[in-house]
Amino acid sequence: MYLHTQQLINEIVVDEPDPAAANALQEGLGGQFGEMRTMMQYLFQSINFRGDASAQPYRDLLQGVGTEEISHVELIGTTISRLLDGSPRYNGKRTDPVDQPGAKGATPLKIALDTSNIHHYLVGAQGALPVDAAGNPWSGSYVYNSGNLVLDLLYNLMLESTGRLQKCRIYEMTDNKAARSTIAYLIVRDQAHENAFAKALESLGVNWGSVLPIPKTNAEQFPEVKKLLDQGLQSIQFTFSADDKSQADKLYRGASPSDDGTELSTAVMPEGFPLTISPERREEFSPGLDPELLALIQATAEAEIRSAEGE
Amino acid sequence: MYLHTQQLINEIVVDEPDPAAANALQEGLGGQFGEMRTMMQYLFQSINFRGDASAQPYRDLLQGVGTEEISHVELIGTTISRLLDGSPRYNGKRTDPVDQPGAKGATPLKIALDTSNIHHYLVGAQGALPVDAAGNPWSGSYVYNSGNLVLDLLYNLMLESTGRLQKCRIYEMTDNKAARSTIAYLIVRDQAHENAFAKALESLGVNWGSVLPIPKTNAEQFPEVKKLLDQGLQSIQFTFSADDKSQADKLYRGASPSDDGTELSTAVMPEGFPLTISPERREEFSPGLDPELLALIQATAEAEIRSAEGE
Amino acid sequence: MYLHTQQLINEIVVDEPDPAAANALQEGLGGQFGEMRTMMQYLFQSINFRGDASAQPYRDLLQGVGTEEISHVELIGTTISRLLDGSPRYNGKRTDPVDQPGAKGATPLKIALDTSNIHHYLVGAQGALPVDAAGNPWSGSYVYNSGNLVLDLLYNLMLESTGRLQKCRIYEMTDNKAARSTIAYLIVRDQAHENAFAKALESLGVNWGSVLPIPKTNAEQFPEVKKLLDQGLQSIQFTFSADDKSQADKLYRGASPSDDGTELSTAVMPEGFPLTISPERREEFSPGLDPELLALIQATAEAEIRSAEGE
Amino acid sequence: MYLHTQQLINEIVVDEPDPAAANALQEGLGGQFGEMRTMMQYLFQSINFRGDASAQPYRDLLQGVGTEEISHVELIGTTISRLLDGSPRYNGKRTDPVDQPGAKGATPLKIALDTSNIHHYLVGAQGALPVDAAGNPWSGSYVYNSGNLVLDLLYNLMLESTGRLQKCRIYEMTDNKAARSTIAYLIVRDQAHENAFAKALESLGVNWGSVLPIPKTNAEQFPEVKKLLDQGLQSIQFTFSADDKSQADKLYRGASPSDDGTELSTAVMPEGFPLTISPERREEFSPGLDPELLALIQATAEAEIRSAEGE
Amino acid sequence: MYLHTQQLINEIVVDEPDPAAANALQEGLGGQFGEMRTMMQYLFQSINFRGDASAQPYRDLLQGVGTEEISHVELIGTTISRLLDGSPRYNGKRTDPVDQPGAKGATPLKIALDTSNIHHYLVGAQGALPVDAAGNPWSGSYVYNSGNLVLDLLYNLMLESTGRLQKCRIYEMTDNKAARSTIAYLIVRDQAHENAFAKALESLGVNWGSVLPIPKTNAEQFPEVKKLLDQGLQSIQFTFSADDKSQADKLYRGASPSDDGTELSTAVMPEGFPLTISPERREEFSPGLDPELLALIQATAEAEIRSAEGE
Amino acid sequence: MYLHTQQLINEIVVDEPDPAAANALQEGLGGQFGEMRTMMQYLFQSINFRGDASAQPYRDLLQGVGTEEISHVELIGTTISRLLDGSPRYNGKRTDPVDQPGAKGATPLKIALDTSNIHHYLVGAQGALPVDAAGNPWSGSYVYNSGNLVLDLLYNLMLESTGRLQKCRIYEMTDNKAARSTIAYLIVRDQAHENAFAKALESLGVNWGSVLPIPKTNAEQFPEVKKLLDQGLQSIQFTFSADDKSQADKLYRGASPSDDGTELSTAVMPEGFPLTISPERREEFSPGLDPELLALIQATAEAEIRSAEGE
Repeated sequence: MYLHTQQLINEIVVDEPDPAAANALQEGLGGQFGEMRTMMQYLFQSINFRGDASAQPYRDLLQGVGTEEISHVELIGTTISRLLDGSPRYNGKRTDPVDQPGAKGATPLKIALDTSNIHHYLVGAQGALPVDAAGNPWSGSYVYNSGNLVLDLLYNLMLESTGRLQKCRIYEMTDNKAARSTIAYLIVRDQAHENAFAKALESLGVNWGSVLPIPKTNAEQFPEVKKLLDQGLQSIQFTFSADDKSQADKLYRGASPSDDGTELSTAVMPEGFPLTISPERREEFSPGLDPELLALIQATAEAEIRSAEGE
Repeated sequence: MYLHTQQLINEIVVDEPDPAAANALQEGLGGQFGEMRTMMQYLFQSINFRGDASAQPYRDLLQGVGTEEISHVELIGTTISRLLDGSPRYNGKRTDPVDQPGAKGATPLKIALDTSNIHHYLVGAQGALPVDAAGNPWSGSYVYNSGNLVLDLLYNLMLESTGRLQKCRIYEMTDNKAARSTIAYLIVRDQAHENAFAKALESLGVNWGSVLPIPKTNAEQFPEVKKLLDQGLQSIQFTFSADDKSQADKLYRGASPSDDGTELSTAVMPEGFPLTISPERREEFSPGLDPELLALIQATAEAEIRSAEGE
Repeated sequence: MYLHTQQLINEIVVDEPDPAAANALQEGLGGQFGEMRTMMQYLFQSINFRGDASAQPYRDLLQGVGTEEISHVELIGTTISRLLDGSPRYNGKRTDPVDQPGAKGATPLKIALDTSNIHHYLVGAQGALPVDAAGNPWSGSYVYNSGNLVLDLLYNLMLESTGRLQKCRIYEMTDNKAARSTIAYLIVRDQAHENAFAKALESLGVNWGSVLPIPKTNAEQFPEVKKLLDQGLQSIQFTFSADDKSQADKLYRGASPSDDGTELSTAVMPEGFPLTISPERREEFSPGLDPELLALIQATAEAEIRSAEGE
Repeated sequence: MYLHTQQLINEIVVDEPDPAAANALQEGLGGQFGEMRTMMQYLFQSINFRGDASAQPYRDLLQGVGTEEISHVELIGTTISRLLDGSPRYNGKRTDPVDQPGAKGATPLKIALDTSNIHHYLVGAQGALPVDAAGNPWSGSYVYNSGNLVLDLLYNLMLESTGRLQKCRIYEMTDNKAARSTIAYLIVRDQAHENAFAKALESLGVNWGSVLPIPKTNAEQFPEVKKLLDQGLQSIQFTFSADDKSQADKLYRGASPSDDGTELSTAVMPEGFPLTISPERREEFSPGLDPELLALIQATAEAEIRSAEGE
Repeated sequence: MYLHTQQLINEIVVDEPDPAAANALQEGLGGQFGEMRTMMQYLFQSINFRGDASAQPYRDLLQGVGTEEISHVELIGTTISRLLDGSPRYNGKRTDPVDQPGAKGATPLKIALDTSNIHHYLVGAQGALPVDAAGNPWSGSYVYNSGNLVLDLLYNLMLESTGRLQKCRIYEMTDNKAARSTIAYLIVRDQAHENAFAKALESLGVNWGSVLPIPKTNAEQFPEVKKLLDQGLQSIQFTFSADDKSQADKLYRGASPSDDGTELSTAVMPEGFPLTISPERREEFSPGLDPELLALIQATAEAEIRSAEGE
Repeated sequence: MYLHTQQLINEIVVDEPDPAAANALQEGLGGQFGEMRTMMQYLFQSINFRGDASAQPYRDLLQGVGTEEISHVELIGTTISRLLDGSPRYNGKRTDPVDQPGAKGATPLKIALDTSNIHHYLVGAQGALPVDAAGNPWSGSYVYNSGNLVLDLLYNLMLESTGRLQKCRIYEMTDNKAARSTIAYLIVRDQAHENAFAKALESLGVNWGSVLPIPKTNAEQFPEVKKLLDQGLQSIQFTFSADDKSQADKLYRGASPSDDGTELSTAVMPEGFPLTISPERREEFSPGLDPELLALIQATAEAEIRSAEGE
């Protein structure tokens, strides 16, 4: 069973809307090597896991990383949503409300014809979509779960490394601060997960020499990334275990396979940052409530207050 | 952020392996109206939600149902896994170990050629797959999130009703007790979610008359379903809120739209049932560890014990 | 603009339910070379057609064949629906009503686990689906419309020939009379369409020698097909033109390219056979109306009668 | 059976070519909530319909709306074709013929590299494609036909509302008059179809309060839309019934569920506007006939005239 | 550039037709981890390879394995074709010609309704298809080519191991000798390729301990596999280099990473076995030539002979 | 079996990077009518070929064209790779190294947000992808192999003509010399293949009149194309037969069906042009080796030299 807390796993820095950056981030959300895929892959590997009791630390490691990935989906989805939100007004530098089409037959969503994925405005309402940066919908065929422990670990190591590689490339595509705050965070967490699967393979006798982390090139020189590396975020693994039964710490310990001199350690979960609700966008008919319907919602809210007071 | 607890949301009754039932259940896991879809749809609707503060109960309702769906993915995935596990040996009524191919060139996986989805044995290792009952991989194009609140609620009501309809049909396809224990549970929870979205639309002025629940036909006469209805499980909604900030109870209250005379109420989460790990299946090379690798795992486990003792 | 008349383009002979035959026919409905594809391909070719006034007969030929294909979709879809309808009861040789699950937890849809496409019972309600015989959904990528007249005609000739080839193979897979009455009809109409596109290419100078029709092998020896060939149905083309403006007869005339000694000719439309409505299937919850909802429908119908009497 | 008449269901206002607008309209043609989908969904629901004689008005309502959707496919496809036609020459403001590549190795199709979907020029010949605005091919998996009447009606209401929502958004993306004439028409017809399915659900006891139409926001203030609403086009339903056997009028009558004070009524079909043929585009090799082949076509046409005179 | 020689890379043992085995082998041809995928992945990695001159051995290793995979596609495709060929007649134990439908309306292809993929008889003519064992078409999205050398090698190692795992499972599904001769050969060649990529990673400092080969379990005990292992076929790599410029031998040398005590070595290509042409199947209308067309082919052949004699 | 030689089938003229042209060429590589498709289609048709000995020339013709298509995949893939390579630096007119992100948090891959397919930089490393120009992955469902010889030949003729049509259109989209050198070459080779299949159909009695080649329009006036036509490259067919057993010359002889006065003839293979390796691109982390890993590669290379000297 899963629980949710109204906290984001990392803070999203505030910056201007940026639909192009939002679209690049879609690869990290709905791409073949994005967060939806890691999340689903590890959840399936946990559900279908085989072995005797001594194998439980491997299962718990998978379950813990998989649970973290749900929060990554939430983080990168929210980031995309914020990068898109308000972009029609912003890009046109308009100061008047965008939704006055009735009066003049205006085109407040004109921006949609010039952006990377028109669906961000036409199918969604300036929000994240379960697709990659080229618009392909996420597919269940991405999920790899052979049932062979060595193969599943090897695949996972490659998967995290590819995710990290792609995020390093996205970092080089945009300097929007909101986009970069999330990308930098995920670059570091992907390395933490590379460490997790590499360490599990080390326990089976593999010696990685100096090939890790992949990509090898100096990601730590990206300023936003370096800041997080200095905090050691690449060498800690969260269990996200509400009943604290995870045995992942039996594997995620000792010298980091990343060859950076750090020691691996575990914790239950990070502190978190408040989740907020996005504002209404009338040009999208979202949420699309007219005064009459809003009055009904208001009435429901007030009834609740009265009810609470009465209790 | 999300947390996990090593508990299943409902108990899976023990019965014999049944690959045909397992395959039918795949529709409930990876089908267009299955649990992966409801889960993803509500998570995206929560992430992209728009409105002012008075709309928060609607967002929290979506988030709560979405979080529950992750546990449903876990439940139905585990059920499929158990229905497949050991089926090669079982169906052949063999008493000798199935994996002695070396000695005789035997065919311990012959059953795979006669089952509904050969991938259950060939791509997975007698485990659940992210596909529907006809073998189609789950697709991100299933997710509906228009951003328009009324439309999203209307779609969700239809989605839960269709999920429930399909599960009623699956119920009529198999009497395997393991399959039915999960199907019956999900039929009732789908009705609870029908109630959630119908009630939210009631708050906007819709009156459902007597069309709910859908399908209207007497599902409550299915014995395993009736037992759960008698417990009122169709009229309770869990928030799965670890920080108890959910305002879903402002909507999920009062008379049930299902016209069954019950009152709706909320709770944080149900009690749960222990998760277990599936046994090794040598004919699948899963987990595929030979004595040397097993010894390494054992050594790791023992080192952990010593380490724990030393602390 | 299009009009509909409550008539089927050919009569479906009555025979017993046959889900395996129904599934084979799905290739003719939703397959890459099935009726949904020919229909969409010719409608797009008509919409996007280019040329001066002298090219109108080519456009009208495409439009006429395309309109006929909509009726073919209706015919083969209805045939599949009839082959599936009642199959759960029939195959089990049960004489008691199939939907008494409430009383005993029975499995009236058990047949679904042993049929070619479980979706016929689980997603649809013993009805046709827009998929092929292997369960793949129909795709817009099938549609070919290069805009080059010679190429479009060449493709269409190949398309009709492939459709006819596949239907000849389906004919050899089943002797169910309902299935065969539709398959035989479509084999002959596909030849009529082969003639249409071959003749159009003849008007541009191609001489087909004796390669037509394709497949060359003696389809006319299939008894149900021979009967229709004897009526000359392979050498007539309907315009389905409500305003009789079609110029298709400028091309579809003269000696048949099929080298069978017939002369081609046109007509507006065939006579047609009555459409009927399928019965309720309670085990599918279809249409799923309980007594209360049925009473409402009945009330609507009666109100209509009174209203009509009052006028 | 279906008939065709060489008339468009609405007039397309003449304006300049506009490939970006054309691409946005593709969502309305080949998108998940576009006209190809509504057409196919209602045709399948009609073919597979279940019930006794009293349910016929529901079947006929589905059949009538479905038949209208074929004409909508024709309308929006033709609009896209006109918006693309001639765009290479237009955008380059060239006055010389675009197809003189032989002489100079020119690049008359250069525009294709900068447009939303290069396939409009590369795969098609400046014509409509069966894809959505993001280039995804139409899929049979879109079609929903559960067989449960309430669910099918609920889905159809949501489908028409989503189609209308997306068209309102497209309206806000472009002020091209050709695009808007079709979009405005379809916004109003989608509302007529919302009314159809909402009314059918009313007959089963649902009361919609004031949530309809969806989206609620003042679409009637879009000038082109308002003009059609003033004519009452949102409250009439065409049966497109060539044999006038449709009983759709038993449902589509009485006060509009849209809460706009109008009364619903039915008619057979609208008047229609002439269909024309698009001109040759040599840079696309479309239709690609050289003088020799054109002479053959001319000869065929003349032979026809002589033949007609001789009769 | 590529050349072809009319030789199969391995001999296919003769056995009876077996459509179920044929379908299982489709995973090895068109599956996500099958030969079409390895072939395409390595060809793309060769084409897009980056590095200075010292990296050429890595490129040549990829190119050589990729070229071998084309021959594997040929081998497994031919095996599937032979397993399907003649199955309608064989399975029915018929002694009369299967294609006499004309006389009696017989059903010579009835077997198709009971087999794993009806397309083997309906779309193809008892021949191999570019799909996997569950009927999914091969997809370009399978191809992995990140451009990062370590990641590409790691992926390739995992890919070959997964291919080998799946083939070991297929081995356990069927004892048809034709199927097994090809499966056993590919199990051993996949290990040779595991060695190739593992060795390349060894050159970058990775030490595999004893985890290789994957799956670890005693595949060498499968009799047909053991025979090939005894010949050392798992430790030789062919360059398939027509101009003998490959530098793959700079990597594929020294002790095998499979920890089996063998030394790796290279050669240009194996000896090969004659390719033959499949017989006509009249029930499939394949090749579908009637006496008149056959006479034309014969005439062409004879003209060739006369021409050759005349030269 | 297949062999490879380190030669390209045609020379790629050097020009500046051009991502837009690269993307247009993707249609020719991974599109529905591109080289991956022709390659796979002819290989499957060869593998599954049926007939007696007199049919061998047809099989060998298919095999020869299919083998050539592998070299076309190599040619067009390499061309795309060269058009993308270095485009980030080029377009920004930067003279400093692009990969100094660490120092300044720069955005060396910013170009990716403005190009036709962001995956060229994000998923690949400035290299070719197995997708079409709209980003759709190549699909096995493209492959046509009915087993009926006449149909397969007819389809192939249409396929080559469509490929040629699309390449003529791409020619008109870009004047980049590298792109055009490959496009012009493939236009001419597609005509050679049109001739092959048209001639094979001629041997069965079809007379093409003057419809060939398709498209008919004066492609020979494209300067780069004309040069190759003057060399007669459209009238020669290579067998790519390493053992010279191909009988394709029995069909590919005599007057060209293209009606251009040439005589058809065959040869084994063209001369070829050297293959080179692309340079490192640090901004893509490709190949991504740091000094330590490069030293290891160098050491391997040197060990090889010493070893060779020692031998």
